[in-house]
Amino acid sequence: MKKIFLLFGVMGLACSMQAQDIRLNPPTRTGGKAFMETLNERRSERSYVKKEMSVQMLSDLLWAANGFNRPDKRTAPTASNKQELELYVVLEGAAYFYDAKQNVLKFIAKGDFTAALGQANITSKAAVSIVIVADTGKTASKYAYLDTGYISQNIYLYAASAGLGTVARGSYNGAELFKALKLTEKQEVTLVHPVGFLQ
Amino acid sequence: MKKIFLLFGVMGLACSMQAQDIRLNPPTRTGGKAFMETLNERRSERSYVKKEMSVQMLSDLLWAANGFNRPDKRTAPTASNKQELELYVVLEGAAYFYDAKQNVLKFIAKGDFTAALGQANITSKAAVSIVIVADTGKTASKYAYLDTGYISQNIYLYAASAGLGTVARGSYNGAELFKALKLTEKQEVTLVHPVGFLQ
Repeated sequence: MKKIFLLFGVMGLACSMQAQDIRLNPPTRTGGKAFMETLNERRSERSYVKKEMSVQMLSDLLWAANGFNRPDKRTAPTASNKQELELYVVLEGAAYFYDAKQNVLKFIAKGDFTAALGQANITSKAAVSIVIVADTGKTASKYAYLDTGYISQNIYLYAASAGLGTVARGSYNGAELFKALKLTEKQEVTLVHPVGFLQ
Repeated sequence: MKKIFLLFGVMGLACSMQAQDIRLNPPTRTGGKAFMETLNERRSERSYVKKEMSVQMLSDLLWAANGFNRPDKRTAPTASNKQELELYVVLEGAAYFYDAKQNVLKFIAKGDFTAALGQANITSKAAVSIVIVADTGKTASKYAYLDTGYISQNIYLYAASAGLGTVARGSYNGAELFKALKLTEKQEVTLVHPVGFLQ
């Protein structure tokens, strides 16, 4: 199993679209652009060039978005520390749950999720789509949206720092995504974030 | 008038608590910690040492939070680009509106706003409290909260980059703040952010 994981790390994600988990690399907790420069370059970008993302970059992106920067706390806060948000990850042909603690993408399903993600012209060119999902049993709706903003800004800023493009999208097919990601009754998608390479 | 502004820039905010506007310095759009290191150090901090903040640091903090990084767009996005959020700023003894376009703090009122801000043990030690206010006529409530998260994360990350402390606080006195900041009927406070110096 370790050999397979290593192979993913070296070869990128092309060989990873199997019905199995993907072990992520340890995130890089240093580097990137200077913070004020990163802020200065933050913007919404809807046009990407289709290209494969390395496992290291995917690991860093997901950690930046909502990884643990302390044993029990994350890069993004939540109101009253309810930690009600989790990330789901759609790669070419497969969907996964981001287990931030174990640093693993847990396989959910194979399939074409373009229709569920919506706006195929944007989504189909992205290297990855991050789906932010709230456990509505843990907090009030307004706080789930507030907390979604924290994660979304982390994704925007990671993209600015790494020279990638991203945009926060509300126009997804919620019912389709619910089925595709095998969500439970209390879970609700709050935002979709395609991330892609710039021209 | 220019001389007075210059004086503020040199001397900090101690002499600025007059019933007049404060011209901010041009924000520093470069520098700060590396982005991934900044994320790694993001946390909530409720304990500050009372100390004056320079006008340059205040200018940078407010620009990072919700300044313009392009002629018509800001460091924080808003859903469907409604730009429904504005920042109000409470310094020792006076409240201001952050005019991000003109880069000026517009004087609103003198007074002691500790009770309105709530949690005096935290608030009274902060160098500044940023109050995020939504125009509820421009967008749905859930998007106002989503968008508040973007600004709040910018404040958290600026604090991490600059070695300051901050925490997002929902336990303010909304009615008192409404009066103190002279808000209009459609305006609603969504979050309060004290920012202070660490021990």
